[in-house]
Amino acid sequence: MNNSAIGVFDSGVGGLTCVDELRKLMPGENIVYLGDTARIPYGTKSKDTIYSYAKQDIAFLEQHDVKMILVACGTVSSVMMSMPVFEDSRTELKSGVVVPAAHAACAATKNKRIGVIGTSATIKSGSYGKVIHEIMPDVKVVGMACPMFVPLVENGYTAKDCEPARYFAREYLEIMKKEQVDTLILGCTHYPHLSALISDIMGDGVTLISSGAELAKHALKTLSYNDALCSPQQQGKLELYCTDSEELFSENVEKLMSRDINAKISKCTLKF
Amino acid sequence: MNNSAIGVFDSGVGGLTCVDELRKLMPGENIVYLGDTARIPYGTKSKDTIYSYAKQDIAFLEQHDVKMILVACGTVSSVMMSMPVFEDSRTELKSGVVVPAAHAACAATKNKRIGVIGTSATIKSGSYGKVIHEIMPDVKVVGMACPMFVPLVENGYTAKDCEPARYFAREYLEIMKKEQVDTLILGCTHYPHLSALISDIMGDGVTLISSGAELAKHALKTLSYNDALCSPQQQGKLELYCTDSEELFSENVEKLMSRDINAKISKCTLKF
Repeated sequence: MNNSAIGVFDSGVGGLTCVDELRKLMPGENIVYLGDTARIPYGTKSKDTIYSYAKQDIAFLEQHDVKMILVACGTVSSVMMSMPVFEDSRTELKSGVVVPAAHAACAATKNKRIGVIGTSATIKSGSYGKVIHEIMPDVKVVGMACPMFVPLVENGYTAKDCEPARYFAREYLEIMKKEQVDTLILGCTHYPHLSALISDIMGDGVTLISSGAELAKHALKTLSYNDALCSPQQQGKLELYCTDSEELFSENVEKLMSRDINAKISKCTLKF
Repeated sequence: MNNSAIGVFDSGVGGLTCVDELRKLMPGENIVYLGDTARIPYGTKSKDTIYSYAKQDIAFLEQHDVKMILVACGTVSSVMMSMPVFEDSRTELKSGVVVPAAHAACAATKNKRIGVIGTSATIKSGSYGKVIHEIMPDVKVVGMACPMFVPLVENGYTAKDCEPARYFAREYLEIMKKEQVDTLILGCTHYPHLSALISDIMGDGVTLISSGAELAKHALKTLSYNDALCSPQQQGKLELYCTDSEELFSENVEKLMSRDINAKISKCTLKF
């Protein structure tokens, strides 16, 4: 048993889709969340810059009493497949979104054709293909960067019938339809907000995998296996930290999550 | 006469629209340009964060031999109207885009109705309205934030007949047409890339003011007035610095400027 918190980070509020799932699965766990809103987005930046930001994010979470670190950012999760972002970390339990989402996709696919959509940095890294091929070498993996999806979500253009959102979704998903994928990994924590539209374009036969939700399920399994869940009496607390202003963070939470997060938000400064 | 360089900064490559104009007007001048690509964009961040980034950008330029600092970023130029971003600076000659663009708009308007489009931070600040009203108190100023314009430009969706670009432009410019502005300030250095589309929607009777180009004209006047132009023999050199990778910077330059910038690009680190 371990009453320390689960540390979670992302470049902004997107990773709260993972926090939501964590709280559903493990309502007693304390959670410390960091959104690096002063430097958002990560997905358009270079590997070296993402690497240095991620190390600072991890160091910040380790200033708190955390038993596990979850990288709820598709971009950092991809970069860490080839760069040692955890090299200075003392936290044993850690995971990004790539491995859990890749496993879920392999379990879901029937025709062995899996699509991956994500930021430019995520798709450039080929991270999902590497993990999927370790599990199932004969799967065809089709990747597509969707750089307009994050701005669309952040500005509230997420409705199924929103004209420009449909335009970009059709453009990005055309290859997925052509390649007849039956499983599509939403490799960025912003994308579940576009699920209805993506489903509408891909059709009912295609399974969407939310990388943030899969990470939360993986966290439950890992904590349970390591006998590190909190005591059954604990009432889970959520602490939120951001690097830009608290006001901006809560505005974005409201815009994205269409509700109040009901947790204290504090501004913090990361050391370069 | 002064052979020191003109220092210019922006959050990314957008400010090169100002550099282009500087080189046309004053081909002999040396220019040092900084694009803070590791933390782009600025326009969606809070005033305090923009303030601290701007102070670092200025400090970096002052490590070089500069005689003037140009803030080729609409967001920083707006924030500096109410926050002392130059408080630690020793450079006497400096200007942002707001004052030159406001003067140009006042000179251009006939019906005394001026529109301003820019980032959320620029429009929230009301910077243009303040300056315009100091020059012409009876002008009606109509502001509109256009948060989707920067991602559209950065991803190459700038053509006049590009469907989603038209959708957003129509949405953002509706109020400008309704208010019958005859002059429209492009308050963000990315926006000139959308000029053809914006002109098409606004109609021929509306004058578009490029804030970056107006800043360059203002620099020429200021240097000339202060007898600080370079010697006529000087062959202007351009040095480019960015805070994210050089490769990403030159990729973005090519995407945005549709050509090679023909200058050395170096990565630098700003101190927090």
